[in-house]
Amino acid sequence: MAGSTFGNIFKITTWGESHGKALGVVIDGCPAGLPINENDIQIYLNRRKPGQTSISTPRKEADQVEILSGVFDGKTTGTPISLIVPNTSQKSADYSEIASYYRPGHADYTFDAKFGFRDYTGGGRSSGRETIGRVAAGAVACKLLKEMGISVIAYTRAIGPVSADLTHFDKEAITSTPTCMPDHASDQKAMAYLKDCMQKKDSSGGIIECLVDGLPAGIGDPVFDKLDANLSKAIMSIGAVKAVEIGDGTQVSTSVGSVNNDAFFNNHGIIEKKTNHAGGILGGISDGSRIILRAHVKPTPSIFSPQETVNKNGENIEIEIKGRHDPVIVPRAVVVVEAMTAITILDACMLNMTAQLDYLKEFYHH
Amino acid sequence: MAGSTFGNIFKITTWGESHGKALGVVIDGCPAGLPINENDIQIYLNRRKPGQTSISTPRKEADQVEILSGVFDGKTTGTPISLIVPNTSQKSADYSEIASYYRPGHADYTFDAKFGFRDYTGGGRSSGRETIGRVAAGAVACKLLKEMGISVIAYTRAIGPVSADLTHFDKEAITSTPTCMPDHASDQKAMAYLKDCMQKKDSSGGIIECLVDGLPAGIGDPVFDKLDANLSKAIMSIGAVKAVEIGDGTQVSTSVGSVNNDAFFNNHGIIEKKTNHAGGILGGISDGSRIILRAHVKPTPSIFSPQETVNKNGENIEIEIKGRHDPVIVPRAVVVVEAMTAITILDACMLNMTAQLDYLKEFYHH
Amino acid sequence: MAGSTFGNIFKITTWGESHGKALGVVIDGCPAGLPINENDIQIYLNRRKPGQTSISTPRKEADQVEILSGVFDGKTTGTPISLIVPNTSQKSADYSEIASYYRPGHADYTFDAKFGFRDYTGGGRSSGRETIGRVAAGAVACKLLKEMGISVIAYTRAIGPVSADLTHFDKEAITSTPTCMPDHASDQKAMAYLKDCMQKKDSSGGIIECLVDGLPAGIGDPVFDKLDANLSKAIMSIGAVKAVEIGDGTQVSTSVGSVNNDAFFNNHGIIEKKTNHAGGILGGISDGSRIILRAHVKPTPSIFSPQETVNKNGENIEIEIKGRHDPVIVPRAVVVVEAMTAITILDACMLNMTAQLDYLKEFYHH
Amino acid sequence: MAGSTFGNIFKITTWGESHGKALGVVIDGCPAGLPINENDIQIYLNRRKPGQTSISTPRKEADQVEILSGVFDGKTTGTPISLIVPNTSQKSADYSEIASYYRPGHADYTFDAKFGFRDYTGGGRSSGRETIGRVAAGAVACKLLKEMGISVIAYTRAIGPVSADLTHFDKEAITSTPTCMPDHASDQKAMAYLKDCMQKKDSSGGIIECLVDGLPAGIGDPVFDKLDANLSKAIMSIGAVKAVEIGDGTQVSTSVGSVNNDAFFNNHGIIEKKTNHAGGILGGISDGSRIILRAHVKPTPSIFSPQETVNKNGENIEIEIKGRHDPVIVPRAVVVVEAMTAITILDACMLNMTAQLDYLKEFYHH
Repeated sequence: MAGSTFGNIFKITTWGESHGKALGVVIDGCPAGLPINENDIQIYLNRRKPGQTSISTPRKEADQVEILSGVFDGKTTGTPISLIVPNTSQKSADYSEIASYYRPGHADYTFDAKFGFRDYTGGGRSSGRETIGRVAAGAVACKLLKEMGISVIAYTRAIGPVSADLTHFDKEAITSTPTCMPDHASDQKAMAYLKDCMQKKDSSGGIIECLVDGLPAGIGDPVFDKLDANLSKAIMSIGAVKAVEIGDGTQVSTSVGSVNNDAFFNNHGIIEKKTNHAGGILGGISDGSRIILRAHVKPTPSIFSPQETVNKNGENIEIEIKGRHDPVIVPRAVVVVEAMTAITILDACMLNMTAQLDYLKEFYHH
Repeated sequence: MAGSTFGNIFKITTWGESHGKALGVVIDGCPAGLPINENDIQIYLNRRKPGQTSISTPRKEADQVEILSGVFDGKTTGTPISLIVPNTSQKSADYSEIASYYRPGHADYTFDAKFGFRDYTGGGRSSGRETIGRVAAGAVACKLLKEMGISVIAYTRAIGPVSADLTHFDKEAITSTPTCMPDHASDQKAMAYLKDCMQKKDSSGGIIECLVDGLPAGIGDPVFDKLDANLSKAIMSIGAVKAVEIGDGTQVSTSVGSVNNDAFFNNHGIIEKKTNHAGGILGGISDGSRIILRAHVKPTPSIFSPQETVNKNGENIEIEIKGRHDPVIVPRAVVVVEAMTAITILDACMLNMTAQLDYLKEFYHH
Repeated sequence: MAGSTFGNIFKITTWGESHGKALGVVIDGCPAGLPINENDIQIYLNRRKPGQTSISTPRKEADQVEILSGVFDGKTTGTPISLIVPNTSQKSADYSEIASYYRPGHADYTFDAKFGFRDYTGGGRSSGRETIGRVAAGAVACKLLKEMGISVIAYTRAIGPVSADLTHFDKEAITSTPTCMPDHASDQKAMAYLKDCMQKKDSSGGIIECLVDGLPAGIGDPVFDKLDANLSKAIMSIGAVKAVEIGDGTQVSTSVGSVNNDAFFNNHGIIEKKTNHAGGILGGISDGSRIILRAHVKPTPSIFSPQETVNKNGENIEIEIKGRHDPVIVPRAVVVVEAMTAITILDACMLNMTAQLDYLKEFYHH
Repeated sequence: MAGSTFGNIFKITTWGESHGKALGVVIDGCPAGLPINENDIQIYLNRRKPGQTSISTPRKEADQVEILSGVFDGKTTGTPISLIVPNTSQKSADYSEIASYYRPGHADYTFDAKFGFRDYTGGGRSSGRETIGRVAAGAVACKLLKEMGISVIAYTRAIGPVSADLTHFDKEAITSTPTCMPDHASDQKAMAYLKDCMQKKDSSGGIIECLVDGLPAGIGDPVFDKLDANLSKAIMSIGAVKAVEIGDGTQVSTSVGSVNNDAFFNNHGIIEKKTNHAGGILGGISDGSRIILRAHVKPTPSIFSPQETVNKNGENIEIEIKGRHDPVIVPRAVVVVEAMTAITILDACMLNMTAQLDYLKEFYHH
């Protein structure tokens, strides 16, 4: 139960460390018959690959995925899909220093506290590279959702004080700008802010937003496995995320019922809502409108300024972290949020197929 | 998998509807030997009981708990603890109106979409009364945590625009004020605001904060079952919660690394942190400092103003909800947040007992 | 994780002790829309009720079930179904003796070893009364399966040396004979054997057989959740069962491939098998023919002859158990085997609805 | 939920097909600090490797394991251990024939029925090679159990009509004889029988027995997760197993209580049993004596005699299977039974560490 498995029916298990031989994921419960190849997955992995922009670590990694099982004649067989991404650029650096102390904002101390020791090379399992398995599985989930008419899209909503301008939403910008913002003007402002951060040997936080379209009403569960509860876990399980919002999120606490309630109306035979403060979920179940969620991401803890901390002997020391680090986590985490959202939505859709006796009767033809 | 079970080792399964015969919970996996009686649980249930203040529905419910199994000679036996709370005040009202349309902000429409029909009396399973099982189980979890030296406390952090004044934190006020705020002055301001809301036939949102003290470093898991991920699910699964924050929460997105990182230092032999922006969790694992989380709660969707909606025939209509409703959900949800936090923390502590080989060797060699 | 929950989608959680206030079960994941009432369940419970024949304990229990939640307007709502059966006949006997020693063949010693102490009244949770929750849930599963065209039937295959004569199979006899054998002649022979056992202050073992008809090919999973694996767990989890067989069972070890293989053939357009040594399961997945399984049940451990054992002070003693006991467990366990089989089969059918992409596409495009 | 995951705390997920690129397993929940290297695992894999005796398929496979994650400085880190075994000898045979019909006794038909199509090369996921992941994980479990003082051993109990002579039990023979019988004389008789089978183009069934020593009393759970229930699932999930027995197994059905009950006695301060008909488990919980279980394995379904079956067009045909096949499954399955038993026992031991409040208090107060 070390918690490397996620999902109920569409179930993923990730493994691998930053500087180990490889990272990967096993997807169990993927329906048979989905056409899938390595390129379908590679497209998603490329979006989180390092070394592509001035705000991403210069570490060079091919991050090339290989399908080891579960696909035959180009289609999923219904048995576990094993995906592997070899590590190629673990430079044999001197880690003796980093092994000797606890970096602030990192999991060094807590891993030692839990496990008695840790893989200190590149952060081991607590590295952002852990998300490779999530993204690879998310690519499969997205392809499946697409067949069902459901789309998931995430983008950078803000970096530090710079918010995206959604009135000029440009989907193409998300994958072409270094910040993954959906408009070029905000991207440039954010880049200027990040340049400034780097000059100050500092780092920036930010916000990722994710939208799900095409999800029918009725998906999710009423109590502990509310759709928003499972989404919150999915998103909060991404390293560096410190808050999750659904729909209006934190704003509801200062709102009033007459404003926050979304009125239903009949739109040419389809029941819709005039507003979407709820972010598409009522009572834990989708209401047919767009799902909206936001993740608040903390600044990269690895900064080049001097910091106070404690070493393994318990001595108070001052350190200066060296190496290669992104000044902001957000852009490379955008596709991770998209992946985790897709996996959660797909799993909920699959669970929903047994919600009514009539579904079973129709399926079993009696 | 209709999602009425929560937890891995300390596992709870709740059941019951607002106007059914009873509500309850089965706790499986509670260690044997814990002294517990009905009063231990009743104290917690009383904190969420209706009809106690001017801002709580006048529905009169004894909400009296009975232990049906799992306790022998005053101690838990290690087998499932079944707790039941009979419903006594389901007035046989005329629900034909409420059955005919979809209340905005409620789960009426989504339940119909999922299940094909719904128990429309008092909201059925989507009622706030669903939390009775959570609170009863939380009382047991809290008692167990106390034996381990861990305490959990929740309180109202804000109601609408009125925030609690933490510089005058008064623990006793939490259970004695109608708002469950931890200071009397803010409570009075909030009550004035709520009175105004009620006069406007409107309702208010708010914020609940929860603190965990005494939790050692090392509790939680590195990937999907991060302590903060599981806490987020636990809290977001409470009806009406639309955002969850850990530590500095949403503020991290506009912060910088040099501020957000918490410096470690040696405090007379104990490794501590100079600040706690992280809210006590690093890399999904507790760091030994206080756990801090916040839930943002939407305004009560049942308001007495006229609202637009659709009826079951798909006709656009205007409705006015009648009945008995709290103008704010927050105060009665405080103990629910406390309960869900306690259950999650306890479960993580229990899982942690197998984290190191040395623990197993010590256990099985004595 | 004290293991009181069974199933993945159709998930049951049982609770209760022999001499506690009540026993019960919570069924989570039952599809909405199934017509069900207390009588549907009572019929099954009556089949395991004590005090009905000369080979059943004279303890009088109404074993009357009450539905507490999850049913509205006579149909399941999709939310947890809570079923309760009060204990009415826990006579306030003197249990000080039984509390002081470990009965051979019972769980007294192992419960103490695990939990540190035990509820010694009537066996507590290790009593056969624990199966009440299973049977109540099984009644719901059977009703659901019937709607899908699937039937489950169990009967006594043997008691001690007396085997049922299947060439004179009479379904009606199963519920009308005291032994639950499917033919009256064998029932009488078995009754004579049991009378002899009782005179010798001894008890008898036996075999229960269970058949599933109408299950389509393709149900089950290829690896750990093989249909036969899950059935084995389900059946072996019934107290006193010491062996489980599928199809030819233990006979396969002395068979040869040319005999044991079942030949496929085309029976007027339907693929069938000429024989059924496999008991309807190949590679963990149903093959469309009848599912056949057998449970071997040990003799009732409570016998009236003197027995050697140890008391709680570790002293070697000789005991004579008093009280009320069945001379054979088999007849009252028949309906338990039927219930556990039904629950397992139903759960597998529900899981199967996501096996192919085409199923999802069809479901989400209409 | 395609069922490729097994275990609760010590949790394994296997993947891979007979003729795919590789097979493997991810172990999640292994405690940190266990010294382990590839050789520790290889020793177990070598015991199930093909091509080593005259009764094993001549397919040559190195079956060389590689550790991809979860081990650092020679010790487990507490994070997922990913183990991979590349396939090297998938000869590019012509599978068009085997793709066109359903082999009797195999999973060809049921896989098609479930998934709509199948990987027909070498049986795909239904091949015996699927067990590689189980054995690799079992090696880790065995090493861990050894540190706790618990040993697991399996051997061939019978092949066809030839039973092992346990009065001449020779542990060394298990790994040195081709049949894995624990005495050389029976091994030779069984080899003669198998030679005869092969000459008749037929195959043989058999029995595997497994013993667990050193397991303390108190391990297991009272209801659905009884130790014997979980063992039954573990063993029945191994392909070709058709019956599972615990202790006296099927013999209990013709036994009587006065014989079948095991008397407790005080053996110099330790509570023991004079006999062990129960096979070490009472009420689902270990009683401190040896755990004994048996698996009945069907004859290899691939035989070289002509067989009747149906092709994919539904035509009745006669086939003759070619290729490379073991005349008996038992010897190579011995280590699989050992592995699955070890994994189940270890998981139960880990779960047991939270059975009593005192355990938690002791753990969290030091």
